[in-house]
Amino acid sequence: MLLNRSLIDQHNESALKTHQLKLAGLQNELPHTEGIISLLSAFQVAIPSWALGTGGTRFGRFSGGGEPRNLEEKMEDVALLHQLNRSSGAISLHIPWDIPENPKHIRALANQYDLRFDAVNSNTFQDQPGQNYSYKFGSLQHVDKTVRQQAIDHNIEVIKHGIELGSESLTVWLSDGSCFPGQLNFRKAFQRTLESLQEIYGALPDNWKMFVEYKAFEPNFYSMTVGDWGQSLLFANKLGPKAFTLVDLGHHLPNANIEQIVSLLLMEGKLAGFHFNDSKYGDDDLTVGSINPYQLFLIFNELVEGMNARGMNHAKDLGWMIDASHNVKDPLEDLLQSVEAIQLAYAQALIVDTPALQKAQENNDVVRCQEILQAAYRTDLRPLVAEARMRAGGALQPLQLFREQELRQQLIKARGEKAIATGL
Amino acid sequence: MLLNRSLIDQHNESALKTHQLKLAGLQNELPHTEGIISLLSAFQVAIPSWALGTGGTRFGRFSGGGEPRNLEEKMEDVALLHQLNRSSGAISLHIPWDIPENPKHIRALANQYDLRFDAVNSNTFQDQPGQNYSYKFGSLQHVDKTVRQQAIDHNIEVIKHGIELGSESLTVWLSDGSCFPGQLNFRKAFQRTLESLQEIYGALPDNWKMFVEYKAFEPNFYSMTVGDWGQSLLFANKLGPKAFTLVDLGHHLPNANIEQIVSLLLMEGKLAGFHFNDSKYGDDDLTVGSINPYQLFLIFNELVEGMNARGMNHAKDLGWMIDASHNVKDPLEDLLQSVEAIQLAYAQALIVDTPALQKAQENNDVVRCQEILQAAYRTDLRPLVAEARMRAGGALQPLQLFREQELRQQLIKARGEKAIATGL
Amino acid sequence: MLLNRSLIDQHNESALKTHQLKLAGLQNELPHTEGIISLLSAFQVAIPSWALGTGGTRFGRFSGGGEPRNLEEKMEDVALLHQLNRSSGAISLHIPWDIPENPKHIRALANQYDLRFDAVNSNTFQDQPGQNYSYKFGSLQHVDKTVRQQAIDHNIEVIKHGIELGSESLTVWLSDGSCFPGQLNFRKAFQRTLESLQEIYGALPDNWKMFVEYKAFEPNFYSMTVGDWGQSLLFANKLGPKAFTLVDLGHHLPNANIEQIVSLLLMEGKLAGFHFNDSKYGDDDLTVGSINPYQLFLIFNELVEGMNARGMNHAKDLGWMIDASHNVKDPLEDLLQSVEAIQLAYAQALIVDTPALQKAQENNDVVRCQEILQAAYRTDLRPLVAEARMRAGGALQPLQLFREQELRQQLIKARGEKAIATGL
Amino acid sequence: MLLNRSLIDQHNESALKTHQLKLAGLQNELPHTEGIISLLSAFQVAIPSWALGTGGTRFGRFSGGGEPRNLEEKMEDVALLHQLNRSSGAISLHIPWDIPENPKHIRALANQYDLRFDAVNSNTFQDQPGQNYSYKFGSLQHVDKTVRQQAIDHNIEVIKHGIELGSESLTVWLSDGSCFPGQLNFRKAFQRTLESLQEIYGALPDNWKMFVEYKAFEPNFYSMTVGDWGQSLLFANKLGPKAFTLVDLGHHLPNANIEQIVSLLLMEGKLAGFHFNDSKYGDDDLTVGSINPYQLFLIFNELVEGMNARGMNHAKDLGWMIDASHNVKDPLEDLLQSVEAIQLAYAQALIVDTPALQKAQENNDVVRCQEILQAAYRTDLRPLVAEARMRAGGALQPLQLFREQELRQQLIKARGEKAIATGL
Repeated sequence: MLLNRSLIDQHNESALKTHQLKLAGLQNELPHTEGIISLLSAFQVAIPSWALGTGGTRFGRFSGGGEPRNLEEKMEDVALLHQLNRSSGAISLHIPWDIPENPKHIRALANQYDLRFDAVNSNTFQDQPGQNYSYKFGSLQHVDKTVRQQAIDHNIEVIKHGIELGSESLTVWLSDGSCFPGQLNFRKAFQRTLESLQEIYGALPDNWKMFVEYKAFEPNFYSMTVGDWGQSLLFANKLGPKAFTLVDLGHHLPNANIEQIVSLLLMEGKLAGFHFNDSKYGDDDLTVGSINPYQLFLIFNELVEGMNARGMNHAKDLGWMIDASHNVKDPLEDLLQSVEAIQLAYAQALIVDTPALQKAQENNDVVRCQEILQAAYRTDLRPLVAEARMRAGGALQPLQLFREQELRQQLIKARGEKAIATGL
Repeated sequence: MLLNRSLIDQHNESALKTHQLKLAGLQNELPHTEGIISLLSAFQVAIPSWALGTGGTRFGRFSGGGEPRNLEEKMEDVALLHQLNRSSGAISLHIPWDIPENPKHIRALANQYDLRFDAVNSNTFQDQPGQNYSYKFGSLQHVDKTVRQQAIDHNIEVIKHGIELGSESLTVWLSDGSCFPGQLNFRKAFQRTLESLQEIYGALPDNWKMFVEYKAFEPNFYSMTVGDWGQSLLFANKLGPKAFTLVDLGHHLPNANIEQIVSLLLMEGKLAGFHFNDSKYGDDDLTVGSINPYQLFLIFNELVEGMNARGMNHAKDLGWMIDASHNVKDPLEDLLQSVEAIQLAYAQALIVDTPALQKAQENNDVVRCQEILQAAYRTDLRPLVAEARMRAGGALQPLQLFREQELRQQLIKARGEKAIATGL
Repeated sequence: MLLNRSLIDQHNESALKTHQLKLAGLQNELPHTEGIISLLSAFQVAIPSWALGTGGTRFGRFSGGGEPRNLEEKMEDVALLHQLNRSSGAISLHIPWDIPENPKHIRALANQYDLRFDAVNSNTFQDQPGQNYSYKFGSLQHVDKTVRQQAIDHNIEVIKHGIELGSESLTVWLSDGSCFPGQLNFRKAFQRTLESLQEIYGALPDNWKMFVEYKAFEPNFYSMTVGDWGQSLLFANKLGPKAFTLVDLGHHLPNANIEQIVSLLLMEGKLAGFHFNDSKYGDDDLTVGSINPYQLFLIFNELVEGMNARGMNHAKDLGWMIDASHNVKDPLEDLLQSVEAIQLAYAQALIVDTPALQKAQENNDVVRCQEILQAAYRTDLRPLVAEARMRAGGALQPLQLFREQELRQQLIKARGEKAIATGL
Repeated sequence: MLLNRSLIDQHNESALKTHQLKLAGLQNELPHTEGIISLLSAFQVAIPSWALGTGGTRFGRFSGGGEPRNLEEKMEDVALLHQLNRSSGAISLHIPWDIPENPKHIRALANQYDLRFDAVNSNTFQDQPGQNYSYKFGSLQHVDKTVRQQAIDHNIEVIKHGIELGSESLTVWLSDGSCFPGQLNFRKAFQRTLESLQEIYGALPDNWKMFVEYKAFEPNFYSMTVGDWGQSLLFANKLGPKAFTLVDLGHHLPNANIEQIVSLLLMEGKLAGFHFNDSKYGDDDLTVGSINPYQLFLIFNELVEGMNARGMNHAKDLGWMIDASHNVKDPLEDLLQSVEAIQLAYAQALIVDTPALQKAQENNDVVRCQEILQAAYRTDLRPLVAEARMRAGGALQPLQLFREQELRQQLIKARGEKAIATGL
């Protein structure tokens, strides 16, 4: 279900005058708006296939109707998002939730929708019906080689699916760990995991990357075998040049300084990219920018500075994905909010007065450093982001258009009230 | 499935000599072992019906086989536990997971098993099939009175079930809250919740208590409407003398001093009792005493001191329940470990040299205060707890006997590999 | 040292044109800017006398030169701030760091500077030279009545100083607590503290308030006797209608939802006011708004909603104070940043579309709730705050003017490089 | 001030009978008590020179009288501890707090006292009187090379002092970091710090080690340049084979799994050793084992397992130091408690049934893993530790003897009520 192009134009026209007035103020104030607009246009955020349905917790899941029932419908949803914001031109699949039975067809569909396939994700944290061995006590870390082999094979299978679709990276998130002191020999668990990862690494095509994601806790509540960036980096370094550390914003202990981690991983040439979301307590998987938007800006500030220092291409050299999932919002509306929050933070980082900041840092002028960052952050860049969107063919106000056109109601009509997407 | 009495006797006999040797050492060392043994014997910990099956997380659930398939089988499991440790003589039901279709029969069964029914628990955090209104946006706090009424009615229904079984308390745990800033008007949510609780309170029989449980986060990840002991106490005070605050050890922010909360609630006459478990990160629901046994002792130290100061009956005046649930242990073995951890902590608290501690406190002799507490804590009281168990008819080593007799295998044989209990 | 009025005018004139352009954009966009400007003008934030010198940690203190050497110079600094931003028209004294030897003179000076005296603060967390008894083991909680009496007397003395200066509230922050399990009987410590507070409460003039501040940890690292809002509220309720709970933003456990606490304290009619600062880990006492400005906005959102719901006067009915202290910024520049951050958050809260928010809340339209809050937050209100400042006679850009006029260098010249203010 | 040998003998004699009875019970129960006793005897814990005086917080310091006034008196205190417990045969100096003016004399004194010099500690977190450049904005990370050079030179100076005394390691703890977003370029700060450390590393004698200590926060409250084990390990790896990561138990974010970190650092051959203490909230620097003794045991469990796996010498191959400091206990009594807590945890780890644990781990028998660990932990090993102490010439009950002999009173008599040791 895509929107008729003319409806977007109509929407834009009706909002154009107000928009242009606000934009003019910004253009007046900021020197390089055109450069920022083109960087924003190039910047695409991958949508995870599992975020298109209502997420849930162990306490319950409250589906909302009209959820995509299969991979084709998930792609349809992403296509709709991308049509609205022109910044969601990629999808990240999760195997086995989204096995592409007919890859050619799926690839053709993607072309038609102007989508590419971002990292493919393996799943060894759940048992699937008919599976030979259980992951109850871990997968790549398991004490039993046959279980590890099953998990290795699954990952290699996921790579194969990815190749068929044109993906170029594999995200390995392991729930492996332990719930009780004594359950695990940490060292041996690390080493078994490393050996398993090495086998998977060996199956990567030349142009592929492996993203090793870390997480501090949940679902294991005593230890996680890839528990922090230090452990992930150890794995990535031992694996080789195609292995990188993936940062999920919700996967840290309380009060962690994530932006510093980002900066150091970039320094080491080992940052894979992001799973964006926001959180207050743990892996809450809330809408990006909904809890602490300043932190998101500070992360982008490190990203822009660090990528520029290494001559990296903002749009291509790192993986940008959303990983949010919760109960109380329409998933598509939620994703529109998340993408916009990312774009705003990115734009704010792009207008930081870098030479002035460097000078202030060199003078230990801490007051000035804060002024410079907050001047960028406090500037209302919503018109700039909207302009980039409109120029790329999207809607000035995607969320508003989504509602005006009653798109969810249409999806419910097409798919039913009880449609439930695969996912958590 | 109960154990043949003679098997317990046999087990005890075989372990008796070693046991008596260790016990003699303790009796030699400690002045009042007989008094402690009789307090231990009187102390019963209620087993929650939902802990008899393997728990899980939003990422997966790995059942273990032989789980109870209905209320009768759950009671059978508790009876087995109680037979082994003589300290699990109560069961706490969760409605609608355990609706007693035939209460007379259930009550007779309980009598036969020597079990009583502890607090009954309502559930308004999940939607049940066929339910008129959804709790997606809360239950007792809901903006819509019809939803609140449904939740109120459910709680009153739960009270009725409880009356039929001889329960005398209702535990209200609300997942109500919000996931995003702005979603809720905190004040109005509090007031609506209060009004709903007042209606439920009005339906309590004279001899009943209402336990208002608080929780800092999960499943709502921005705010919880009964989020900490302060909020719960506000509710309990506004409700009246039959309302109390229930403490679940895993429901706090990081680093909270739970023992101080316990002491103050006792001071205010508003402590309901406990949901025991252990945790490292959040509501991890791990085996009691598995992560921080010293904290458990410190809590019991406050309990014993505070209950004695108010002339309370240790065994009867507070509600003692377990609330644990996780993936990687046999649920019955897990409960045996939890009950033993509670008994040990209680016994340790009972041997604290209270007059010496008071004197040290009055002299600000902090070193001595620590010595006194740790002397009690470091004393190995396992023989005393075992003795109390044996005298009451239980097994010296319940876990060992459970394994020797291959009780889980027998349960699997009776109930099947795929039996899955209701619960999280 | 005050600035020549003409310098402010000159500064404003030079920045006026740019300012007016930006302001016009806002006025165009927002309906009630005049009302907001007058609320902003009325809103005064008290400066704590101890924040005028460089703060420090137990690891060291790095003074910066030109710090005020006595109360008169501290008032001079606040007067300078107030001249620059017209929003710092109050000072909060700390006894015994700032004993007004000659109150008449001090009061005259305050009049001259257009300053009033906000809450006076007692100090029973340090031993003063010549003091009879030590607070090593607490003050109002102390096991020894003579020590408690000394602390009570000190608080009454502080009230007397406050009366002489025209203060109308006493802030009691207690470091009382314990460092080790067993050190304290929590209940008795609470009760002794309550009795002590009651004696102080009895000495309050009719028009005075007592602010009971809570803190989760530091300097005591096991328990704090007024450790959270629940405990503070217990004290305040037991003390009577003149006692209130004071919120310091840095005094919570990790991840606490402070805005919810604020809302509930307002509901109970027991919110005293604030000690503003920001923090990432504990009581870091950083510049307001420097770490999590969105949280600050969310707090003001609750304040505005809650004060309006109770018909309260924003400027007068609560105590607004800064309590920050650290090593790496010029204290006056730091305070300028803090006051501006508070004003921005207040202004953002004032432009929240309240009727729309209420409607969205009533419809459980969570996406819309977030949009409404973030629309207010993302609007760049710096021009509005600057306008309010200028109209009240202050500088459009106080920090810039402070630097242009080399005010710190002048202070150093007057007071010396080694001047060190009293404080932490 | 040393104790007359005969007083120790007398003390031991009076407690002997009770002791032997308890010991016999243990010897009966445990297979290898002799081996454990000799490992305990060999195990020495270094006492930091700064822990011999009362510590404090930024809010105050409450000295206790009789504190050592100079290095000689500090050594005298350690000698006294060592005489009492025979496990404190090393001292760790802090420069410039303890500059050995006459190293020959100091070394002779050490010989006489049977003490050796453990790691020497540099201090670049405070400014010393007469220092050319300030560390206000960092030391080894400083933007200005002259400041870095001063800090490098200081570290090299510390090495020289250490060489004179026979130390063989340098502990570098940096407070370097930032208090505000933007203040620091994380990458450049890391690289400048690395260069500085490389210069210091170059000055290490062949047989020396460099210990790079990390800390999550305080005194910097936004970022720390060596903030976690991952960063420390990056530094250690880049520096070379003589550089290692030092773990201070209080230097982590909330809920960190320290034992896992320990295991992985051992795996990497990069664990330096420990600064032992305990804490509830942050770097509380409380008595070892006073808050969470089970965690301490779990850490030792990893240490024993990991050192054995690498064929390491428990007593010599890692650095064992205490780093505690607080307000409310007599420092010497506190250290006696800390050393005993370490010995108990070590002893408990030594009696873990390792083969059984390995087997249980290989079978994913989580219940059994917990039983094995807790069986070791719950065993009361105080008699074994006392026996090891007595055999080595120390006191059965050092703390009791310290009090009986009124040693603090004697120290006060000798040094005065107002003696205050250097330190925090």
